[in-house]
Amino acid sequence: MIVVMSPSASEGEIKSVIEWLHEHGFEVHISRGKVRIILGVIGDKETLFDLPVEALEGVEKTVPVTHAYKLASRLFKEEATVIDVGGVKIGGQNFVVIAGPCAVENREQLLETARKVKEAGAHFLRGGAFKPRTSPYSFQGLQEEGLKLLAETRAETGLGVVTEVMAPQQTELVAQYADILQIGARNMHNFDLLREVGRTKKPVLLKRGFAATIDEWLNAAEYIMCEGNYKVILCERGIRTYEPMTRNTLDISAIPLVKGLSHLPVLADPSHASGKWKLVAPLSRAALAAGADGLMIEVHPDPSRAFSDGPQSLKPDNFATVMAELRQLVPILGKEMA
Amino acid sequence: MIVVMSPSASEGEIKSVIEWLHEHGFEVHISRGKVRIILGVIGDKETLFDLPVEALEGVEKTVPVTHAYKLASRLFKEEATVIDVGGVKIGGQNFVVIAGPCAVENREQLLETARKVKEAGAHFLRGGAFKPRTSPYSFQGLQEEGLKLLAETRAETGLGVVTEVMAPQQTELVAQYADILQIGARNMHNFDLLREVGRTKKPVLLKRGFAATIDEWLNAAEYIMCEGNYKVILCERGIRTYEPMTRNTLDISAIPLVKGLSHLPVLADPSHASGKWKLVAPLSRAALAAGADGLMIEVHPDPSRAFSDGPQSLKPDNFATVMAELRQLVPILGKEMA
Amino acid sequence: MIVVMSPSASEGEIKSVIEWLHEHGFEVHISRGKVRIILGVIGDKETLFDLPVEALEGVEKTVPVTHAYKLASRLFKEEATVIDVGGVKIGGQNFVVIAGPCAVENREQLLETARKVKEAGAHFLRGGAFKPRTSPYSFQGLQEEGLKLLAETRAETGLGVVTEVMAPQQTELVAQYADILQIGARNMHNFDLLREVGRTKKPVLLKRGFAATIDEWLNAAEYIMCEGNYKVILCERGIRTYEPMTRNTLDISAIPLVKGLSHLPVLADPSHASGKWKLVAPLSRAALAAGADGLMIEVHPDPSRAFSDGPQSLKPDNFATVMAELRQLVPILGKEMA
Amino acid sequence: MIVVMSPSASEGEIKSVIEWLHEHGFEVHISRGKVRIILGVIGDKETLFDLPVEALEGVEKTVPVTHAYKLASRLFKEEATVIDVGGVKIGGQNFVVIAGPCAVENREQLLETARKVKEAGAHFLRGGAFKPRTSPYSFQGLQEEGLKLLAETRAETGLGVVTEVMAPQQTELVAQYADILQIGARNMHNFDLLREVGRTKKPVLLKRGFAATIDEWLNAAEYIMCEGNYKVILCERGIRTYEPMTRNTLDISAIPLVKGLSHLPVLADPSHASGKWKLVAPLSRAALAAGADGLMIEVHPDPSRAFSDGPQSLKPDNFATVMAELRQLVPILGKEMA
Repeated sequence: MIVVMSPSASEGEIKSVIEWLHEHGFEVHISRGKVRIILGVIGDKETLFDLPVEALEGVEKTVPVTHAYKLASRLFKEEATVIDVGGVKIGGQNFVVIAGPCAVENREQLLETARKVKEAGAHFLRGGAFKPRTSPYSFQGLQEEGLKLLAETRAETGLGVVTEVMAPQQTELVAQYADILQIGARNMHNFDLLREVGRTKKPVLLKRGFAATIDEWLNAAEYIMCEGNYKVILCERGIRTYEPMTRNTLDISAIPLVKGLSHLPVLADPSHASGKWKLVAPLSRAALAAGADGLMIEVHPDPSRAFSDGPQSLKPDNFATVMAELRQLVPILGKEMA
Repeated sequence: MIVVMSPSASEGEIKSVIEWLHEHGFEVHISRGKVRIILGVIGDKETLFDLPVEALEGVEKTVPVTHAYKLASRLFKEEATVIDVGGVKIGGQNFVVIAGPCAVENREQLLETARKVKEAGAHFLRGGAFKPRTSPYSFQGLQEEGLKLLAETRAETGLGVVTEVMAPQQTELVAQYADILQIGARNMHNFDLLREVGRTKKPVLLKRGFAATIDEWLNAAEYIMCEGNYKVILCERGIRTYEPMTRNTLDISAIPLVKGLSHLPVLADPSHASGKWKLVAPLSRAALAAGADGLMIEVHPDPSRAFSDGPQSLKPDNFATVMAELRQLVPILGKEMA
Repeated sequence: MIVVMSPSASEGEIKSVIEWLHEHGFEVHISRGKVRIILGVIGDKETLFDLPVEALEGVEKTVPVTHAYKLASRLFKEEATVIDVGGVKIGGQNFVVIAGPCAVENREQLLETARKVKEAGAHFLRGGAFKPRTSPYSFQGLQEEGLKLLAETRAETGLGVVTEVMAPQQTELVAQYADILQIGARNMHNFDLLREVGRTKKPVLLKRGFAATIDEWLNAAEYIMCEGNYKVILCERGIRTYEPMTRNTLDISAIPLVKGLSHLPVLADPSHASGKWKLVAPLSRAALAAGADGLMIEVHPDPSRAFSDGPQSLKPDNFATVMAELRQLVPILGKEMA
Repeated sequence: MIVVMSPSASEGEIKSVIEWLHEHGFEVHISRGKVRIILGVIGDKETLFDLPVEALEGVEKTVPVTHAYKLASRLFKEEATVIDVGGVKIGGQNFVVIAGPCAVENREQLLETARKVKEAGAHFLRGGAFKPRTSPYSFQGLQEEGLKLLAETRAETGLGVVTEVMAPQQTELVAQYADILQIGARNMHNFDLLREVGRTKKPVLLKRGFAATIDEWLNAAEYIMCEGNYKVILCERGIRTYEPMTRNTLDISAIPLVKGLSHLPVLADPSHASGKWKLVAPLSRAALAAGADGLMIEVHPDPSRAFSDGPQSLKPDNFATVMAELRQLVPILGKEMA
């Protein structure tokens, strides 16, 4: 940590801050500039993050020079993490596609979607049984019945199932049915839930909160990992900005940035990022080109009858076109798609 | 809802959309402009919010003309809601101040703070026993022990207790000790938690999510209210913007806006909004001047020893000065402070 | 400046960076932590801001510890700047109100507005003759004819005139008529224009760009001041955020923050910040309470006939009510209003 | 335009609004819902954009259903615009790369860069002679001397020159030397400058303002086009968001969106978008994959000696690698690169 003293800090204040840091077990390096003094503070990182140094008299600001997460960092583990889910590999050279409806609505809808996305080359089936909705009066999902339909559909198609868990007490139930537990964007800061999925052995797909910084996102992964579950898959799904034309703004830069900072696989969700099905194809290609390890795409057999997110869902034939385009690009970008 | 058709929509597409809306039970009013056609859709609001009209061919966009929340709206209840918490009234003409440390650290810290803020005129004591923290390695709160210290301090000082509940399964426990249950900004979209506190009879202080729109915030209140708990107190605590000098940007306009849209009381939290104790005094005055029904302020006997949020905590004597300033302004602004 | 080296920086890279800094005339203080090395760099500030240190091998990031502006800083001049404009003082203990229509439309509209705002206690008349508009097909202002109407109205009412200059080549013309030159939010980064108004002797009202940081805003003031014109008045007018309910988000914290960083007067413009006339009263009170030195408010005799910004314009009688409220608050907040 | 009446609007208010619209020459279609009334307003678009309908009593809000720009719209011209600049085509199937230093520093730097980027396959040379800088104390460019060096370098290498014009009075001078006039992000709202370059016959590269909406950006293009200059090239260069790790957030979705709304070519600038040279390669690939018509990339022979933007500049050999990657992708994405 760096401590920047105020230009008006007195010698007494500077001395106090240094003594305070020594008392707390830190080494201090002093740089005296013309206008102000800067302290380089060296010591145990975990403690440093909790120290209210800015509350000391004479301190203008503090600047962290390192991040709080460890297990999620490339410094901790240099080689890319590859997670095997029922024989399908996520991370490394592999490019995977998760596809399916926003919500599980009924057996026919799910099964038809699953068959079609499988045919087009998808590796996993997505579908929400528990749905986080802005209004309490919107469709909230089929809940356990939805989970059962997902399991049935897996039995029929062989596609592994990715589905969201919204609350700690649902974790056990959802984990009985899902191959990958999804933490939605609205729950990225739900620390009790993160710990809970960290205590399972299931892979976790962790979506970035729609206003989370990259640093907060990797700390959320750390919450899961420090409970012993290292199988975390990150998913960029757009951040909230002032631009009204898209539901969110896909932060495409986050993909190569996070792959530099962390060894974990990084997917992108062009459906939620844009909210417009017409943008799914170009954003899918862009995410692959930027280095993503895979995609999560909403597909519905009849988007105009979808209970939620219809406007951003692809029809099965459009999805097949996207897959064909990706298949051409994947090898040129040094990836492989099963 | 308004449906804006694309300029390139065919007559067949327009006809299909209208038929589709009729099939779903809606009346449709057609406005034909030079370039495009607009449909005014009239019918049951709850259903409308779930309809994927934008997924229909030829539709450019849809524009909602009403909001999804009802119980939280001024249209539902015109007069201001006044919530009585142990004899202290929140809402209406009343101006209340909740003060205390970010986290409960130990008996001495809590009791000293409580006595001092009471002496200065605060009406409630705040203090976190369960703490949401970005890093899993940061101090996570004293948990049940912290709740007990809060209850002890209430017994000694008479100040009602406001404390955060972070997960549905904690609700019962926290509700045994707290006078007001706080939902933190990170949990504003934690719908299971909202429902759970909605099932208690305790007043709930609902902080705005740091990237939540006003509409989403009022829908979060609706989640609590539609479970039967109408005692919701809103709290603006700053939103995330590009400006790096403050921790968040206090959305001062949200205070009069929300008081126009809803009958619920609205407080402001200048400590979290700014992250800087020096801004707490001017922002407290500004929130009162903008029409807030009260404030939530972090106070710590020794901010440089605080386990969290030291830089934004006031010392007790600074808090007393803020209270004295507010006391002068309150009557001029048509409010009363007990 | 602080240079944070990458954890993977080699000893050779560290040595090169230090030598490079020495070559450029800087002193370097080295802090060696467990994971990485931090360099405190001391030397001439102006040069430092142009150095591409981050382009050197092994450097992770650089952190500026001081700001680039000087003349605008409290470190350069501690006492508050008070600007006398035709006998009316701006800054210090004084609270001033600038009021008038968005655009000058015709003699009657301007004169009627001016008389009414004067009667209500305004100190200056605002009115645009050159109008920056998003669409080229919107009303662009009466231009020189508008300036003449402003001068006539000043002659009749005695109110000093604040009007916008949009391009360097207009400066001389506008300066002939205006008492205060306004730089609009869209032009805050128009450096040629800033220099040009810096070469006049007229006071300049510098609005904050709608996506400008506070640091950029004070650097824009520096552009004017370093040409010799120290009479700069800052005006916070809302920043662009994700919240759709208001045109912009008034950054109320910026008022006390900037008054701490700079000696220049700071006004607020609640009309542009909110885009809604109903919010003008609460935001005006809030800005005063937060420490603003004055306000800029849009008033139109008949907002429904305004050529621009009607929805955010007050009618004269509402403006009189706002002024009456402010008059009560001003003395309590330690200010004076003539 | 749609006018949404307030639920509390009286019959008299509704009648007045309708009469007011009729008086202004509009047709009105009325949709009466259970809670409120919606008016569909049909008439001359240009007038509509200036009408202060929201200022009328009883109006809750207005919703525009069409955009103000015309010449820039796909509705006005369906086929893609292809601009020929000295034999190099921009738009349509063509993929072009503009490369060079942020600022022209001296003959050697410029010539060396130009030769190397030409060798790697770039089609145009960029380089700033007039530099917009946040601080007045930063390097402001070589100005006319820089323009001469650019012309000399073109003579030697054959590369067309793209350079920025910052003020209306510079336009004539810059147009003597440049093949493409660049309008920088900070000047996208500088309407006098837009008109001025609209009066030249030179192609204009119009960068998106860093907080401009897509709608505002296309209206800025309209300012240029309505002066008779249809040769406008758009360039997405990142928008300002809350994420601190990148200088800006590349709005990758804007590329396909704008290509749908407009017939104009759209480039991307990954250097300014990210501020980090390591992100230039993945973002270049992503922009191409999302449908961009080309790229603008900063290249410097020795970024650590660059007068500005060193941290985001590629070295010539890295640039050559990026070009080689793009060359493989271009044909698969249905584009051609000369």
